[in-house]
Amino acid sequence: MASLTHLLSSRDRIFYDLFESLADTAVRATAHLDEMLAQFPEGRREHFEKITDCEREGDETLHAIRARLNQTFVTPIDREDILALGSALDDIIDFAEEAADYLGLYGIEAPMEQSQRLAGILLACARQVALAVPAIRTLSDPSETIHEIHRLENDGDRVSRDAIAALFHDGIDPMVVIRWKDIYMRLEQGIDACEHVADVIDEIIIKGK
Amino acid sequence: MASLTHLLSSRDRIFYDLFESLADTAVRATAHLDEMLAQFPEGRREHFEKITDCEREGDETLHAIRARLNQTFVTPIDREDILALGSALDDIIDFAEEAADYLGLYGIEAPMEQSQRLAGILLACARQVALAVPAIRTLSDPSETIHEIHRLENDGDRVSRDAIAALFHDGIDPMVVIRWKDIYMRLEQGIDACEHVADVIDEIIIKGK
Amino acid sequence: MASLTHLLSSRDRIFYDLFESLADTAVRATAHLDEMLAQFPEGRREHFEKITDCEREGDETLHAIRARLNQTFVTPIDREDILALGSALDDIIDFAEEAADYLGLYGIEAPMEQSQRLAGILLACARQVALAVPAIRTLSDPSETIHEIHRLENDGDRVSRDAIAALFHDGIDPMVVIRWKDIYMRLEQGIDACEHVADVIDEIIIKGK
Repeated sequence: MASLTHLLSSRDRIFYDLFESLADTAVRATAHLDEMLAQFPEGRREHFEKITDCEREGDETLHAIRARLNQTFVTPIDREDILALGSALDDIIDFAEEAADYLGLYGIEAPMEQSQRLAGILLACARQVALAVPAIRTLSDPSETIHEIHRLENDGDRVSRDAIAALFHDGIDPMVVIRWKDIYMRLEQGIDACEHVADVIDEIIIKGK
Repeated sequence: MASLTHLLSSRDRIFYDLFESLADTAVRATAHLDEMLAQFPEGRREHFEKITDCEREGDETLHAIRARLNQTFVTPIDREDILALGSALDDIIDFAEEAADYLGLYGIEAPMEQSQRLAGILLACARQVALAVPAIRTLSDPSETIHEIHRLENDGDRVSRDAIAALFHDGIDPMVVIRWKDIYMRLEQGIDACEHVADVIDEIIIKGK
Repeated sequence: MASLTHLLSSRDRIFYDLFESLADTAVRATAHLDEMLAQFPEGRREHFEKITDCEREGDETLHAIRARLNQTFVTPIDREDILALGSALDDIIDFAEEAADYLGLYGIEAPMEQSQRLAGILLACARQVALAVPAIRTLSDPSETIHEIHRLENDGDRVSRDAIAALFHDGIDPMVVIRWKDIYMRLEQGIDACEHVADVIDEIIIKGK
């Protein structure tokens, strides 16, 4: 019985390590995006390369989670929750990469101030995610960080709606509107992915108790 | 054994009450949106305030469902289905609120006739949802209302596609096209959320039999 | 015991037949879309009618899967996975139909070359899906076709991003940009649906082993 417990807890540790690694990659990706927008267009190419590196790392870690899951018949956490948490963490990175890529694809020359604020909120969310993920190991109460993520998401929603309203009130070129609506949307989707991570963590900890 | 049955059915009742309350809020939110578009721009602010009240109520009810779920180890309905039904009902309200907010954010002066028709379909869908939700209590056959929701969703899809085609055929300002495509999309997402509620109810009743 | 095994495997066969039929409809729908774009606008109406026929067939097959599921208490595959696979297969057809319909709704006169390439990738993906689905019957290793679908999805992502960048670099009419972004998006969503099918098949085969 002791050896079974040992076996399970060693299995646990591998999933926990992989989730924490993915959360760490999400923090790095969103930090590069935040800096990229703050200094834009200076260092654009270097920041983008670092973000695509993160995106590749994220894919590899998610692949490792799936591969591990395929070899494991008794998982510490429900299979669905392992897949949902892995995918939601990877989504944060994917949306950061998309936002960064579209800045280039759309030939953006100067960033809107609201995009810089949204990137800051996305980074703050990713940092809270990185604080919440280790709570799964100990089933400790994650409600404070989860509450903070919801607060940040509300902020992001307001900034994003104001940003879109500003695009229309300023009566600028429709091509500018199309570009920025798309970039704002991706930043917001990144923030939503952080909120989704929070919900999955909440659910995992409740079930695990 | 009798007391366990009693315990379960008292637990059931709380979830059922919360789902019905959420469906009722969805009907009120979509009714305000329907009136808001019918009388637009008259009473715009008052209607929007009532819709944001509904949005807040919806969030609180969804929170109460989640909190209740966290304290309940044996649920009458699968955990996943409770979360899915709560989220889908709340989505109806969120999309109604977004549609209403964007009418203001985009500085809309006069509503397109098709947006009024879509708001009417959304309200009709929400009313069918409010009829279908109580069927969970008695596991009675919800197929008539579910069928009606699918029929309404098909109507909505056709109205929405025609509305978008009209935007392009009328050769109007691209800024008008961008605004209205966004508002139509949110109305359609509200209708899709109703259809999703119908599918979850169907699944719950099948499993419960 | 032998009769139970027999019973299960006869039940299996019905679901497998329906999934394979749905995959076959997806191949036909995407093949018509590919031809429609290659010959556009010649034969537009005929191709579109065939695609809407496929869309109706897809809905009927999905309905048959759901109806069958409602009568079956012991399913060979998890209920969630049956519903997820059916929906994802139907999504391929729905996005193909939407892309085809929007070509008409938007009054497109000549297709962008990138839309033809994306339609070709979507068709190639659907063909791989049709190869992967029968692997569920025998639980044979689907990794080669799944790998190919992921490779195609990556190609599609690149073509789609380049296509969007081209719309902006060519400095054309914003109405053209709005139209084509929408059509590219639907082609991409069809490809993403194929990738989602691949992930569900992978999960089903792992659990079934």
